[in-house]
Amino acid sequence: MSEPVSELAVRAEKLDAADELRGSRDAFVLDDVTYLDGNSLGALPAVVPGRIEDVVRRQWGELRIRSWEESGWWTAPERIGDRIAPLVGAAPGQIVVGDSTSVNVFKALVGAVRMAGEGRDELLVDATTFPTDGYIAESAARMTGCTLRPVAPADVPGALGDRTAAVLLNHVDYRTGRLHDLPALTAAVHEAGAVAVWDLCHSAGALPVGLDEHGVDLAVGCTYKYLNGGPGSPAYLYVRRDVQDRFDSPLPGWNSHAEPFGMRSEYEAAPGALRGRVGTPDILSMLALEAALEVWDGVSVEAVRAKSLALTDFFLECVERYVPEGGVECLTPVAHGERGSQIALRCHDAGAVMKRLIERGVVGDFRAPDVLRFGFTPLYVGFADVERAARVLAETLA
Amino acid sequence: MSEPVSELAVRAEKLDAADELRGSRDAFVLDDVTYLDGNSLGALPAVVPGRIEDVVRRQWGELRIRSWEESGWWTAPERIGDRIAPLVGAAPGQIVVGDSTSVNVFKALVGAVRMAGEGRDELLVDATTFPTDGYIAESAARMTGCTLRPVAPADVPGALGDRTAAVLLNHVDYRTGRLHDLPALTAAVHEAGAVAVWDLCHSAGALPVGLDEHGVDLAVGCTYKYLNGGPGSPAYLYVRRDVQDRFDSPLPGWNSHAEPFGMRSEYEAAPGALRGRVGTPDILSMLALEAALEVWDGVSVEAVRAKSLALTDFFLECVERYVPEGGVECLTPVAHGERGSQIALRCHDAGAVMKRLIERGVVGDFRAPDVLRFGFTPLYVGFADVERAARVLAETLA
Repeated sequence: MSEPVSELAVRAEKLDAADELRGSRDAFVLDDVTYLDGNSLGALPAVVPGRIEDVVRRQWGELRIRSWEESGWWTAPERIGDRIAPLVGAAPGQIVVGDSTSVNVFKALVGAVRMAGEGRDELLVDATTFPTDGYIAESAARMTGCTLRPVAPADVPGALGDRTAAVLLNHVDYRTGRLHDLPALTAAVHEAGAVAVWDLCHSAGALPVGLDEHGVDLAVGCTYKYLNGGPGSPAYLYVRRDVQDRFDSPLPGWNSHAEPFGMRSEYEAAPGALRGRVGTPDILSMLALEAALEVWDGVSVEAVRAKSLALTDFFLECVERYVPEGGVECLTPVAHGERGSQIALRCHDAGAVMKRLIERGVVGDFRAPDVLRFGFTPLYVGFADVERAARVLAETLA
Repeated sequence: MSEPVSELAVRAEKLDAADELRGSRDAFVLDDVTYLDGNSLGALPAVVPGRIEDVVRRQWGELRIRSWEESGWWTAPERIGDRIAPLVGAAPGQIVVGDSTSVNVFKALVGAVRMAGEGRDELLVDATTFPTDGYIAESAARMTGCTLRPVAPADVPGALGDRTAAVLLNHVDYRTGRLHDLPALTAAVHEAGAVAVWDLCHSAGALPVGLDEHGVDLAVGCTYKYLNGGPGSPAYLYVRRDVQDRFDSPLPGWNSHAEPFGMRSEYEAAPGALRGRVGTPDILSMLALEAALEVWDGVSVEAVRAKSLALTDFFLECVERYVPEGGVECLTPVAHGERGSQIALRCHDAGAVMKRLIERGVVGDFRAPDVLRFGFTPLYVGFADVERAARVLAETLA
């Protein structure tokens, strides 16, 4: 602690006062915990409890089966997809919500290989991916007769070739917080004639994605991190409009049928993004998410990104000032263009350190074997939180 | 209407008074609607709203990320599976809850084909199945190199052969309410060396299933019908204990890993039923289901079955007395051994008839092209409901 505490704390106060997003914090249920784990489970939006009570007591309890039509349950997957769309730079009609991220990765990858066509039998996957994407990619490769090849994102351009069917990449690395270059990598994948599939779990709601602008083919993401949909809230699948006709889902459940209530024994895929649906949507989780998305009304993703970078810059500065040299090693890139909305610090005995931090009211998380992760959710984390977290971290390590 | 209304109404009153399950009705939120659509969406159990409020406000809102451990979120899929187990005649450790029925059909069928082994490349599916099972079976066949063959359940024994890998059957037909002979058909499938997969959507919670007793290999079911889990509540997958080691899921998400938080790039399936898990479970829907299952405390499935048959017998009697000859044709078998817990009546202009019934407070549903479905959920439907439904039906048709 080479500097007096007060200087950074005073600056935090000024930064908070000037923060144009500070009003968004009131849209969440928060307490005096410094919650830096919104990149794992977003905080509860204040609108959700009342909405869910209505869904349970009135829509289910009173209207019962009629709610599939009258309460808009049936169309929730595409309606909520359209609500997520502007947050990831997509025009309406390209996103459906439902199932877990893992299930959507499977749909996207098998769909991608089928789109790629004959003679392309190699699937590339981010070698540093969150494990589920790798496991599911292995299954998708096995079931489509492809070879799976794990490649570090930076090495993807050199690994592409005539046989590449599809590439699955993470926009932001779950562990290090590194932001990968979606526009350049997508262009390289297309240059090679392959299909680009992006996992947006750690970027959507934290920074601009630009799916349409950059011509991404397929994308998936969860909704319980920066989108605050609640524990295990349903994931989403993006299928770019001009490849929708060629999207051939490996999970053609009745909800993806052109005429779901026709009860026809022959399958015929619905037009558009609807063919990404599968079975009956889990309405409680889905409508909690829909309510949670209201916190984005009037919020620009660009403003969120600007604050996110200011928060992580300030955190790095506070850590550098408070934590003695050698106490932690930052795994997250310093360059803004390579940084998501989290900071990953490697330190000795990280699991135990995180436990002590949580006991002191600073909640991040631990990722094996040696990483402390701190997520910065600009809608409800302020600069005073950041200063406090760094200070308590320094005290904990001391 | 060849008999006075009062005679059947009086009998209904006596039957209700003698009904040992009549107390269960108090466990649900009901009104004066005659709700005969619990085979599509079960009524709201009274315990659910308060539980969900706690899950949202305290577990998510206050404990946030800590709830994955402290509120038992992480282990919910297998814990709730064990709660469903006695209702379908399964010992603990064989059922996990999560994903939609369609997704579970995919897991079960691909898993079944992989279990069946070399040289078996034909998949049989109930030709009269609810469509999603047929669509998903087609995808599973395509992705495992099998041929799909739709066969009426009664013809399955004759269709089995050396090349049969697996057979997907419905315990109760969604349209006609016909109960298929699970013990005999499972034995026939095994006799042929194939794997038996059962869809329990329309039987679990309405009649004894006996999965363990009859040696069923794999089974799936939804939880929003007779199990009252709520709209789109998660489905379940049963994998019989002695085939679990051979169950090789096509959706090996990180939740099914032997060490999910090890973040290892190599996949290693968890032991037991856990390998049926995929991604992060949708906690709100899952814990609403867990609460809903409490209505089964102290209820025997045998008592439910006895009442179900008494209800459907009485409904058939009332319809016969009230509805003029030729007004409706019953598609549901009269023999108890072939009847589930619903009555399907074919009639002219069935869609419009059901609309008028619903306007008059008798809620069943319509299945294209010409079927009225009435579901009898013994936990909350009484004999007076049955008499009223038949009477209003007769008046509507008149």
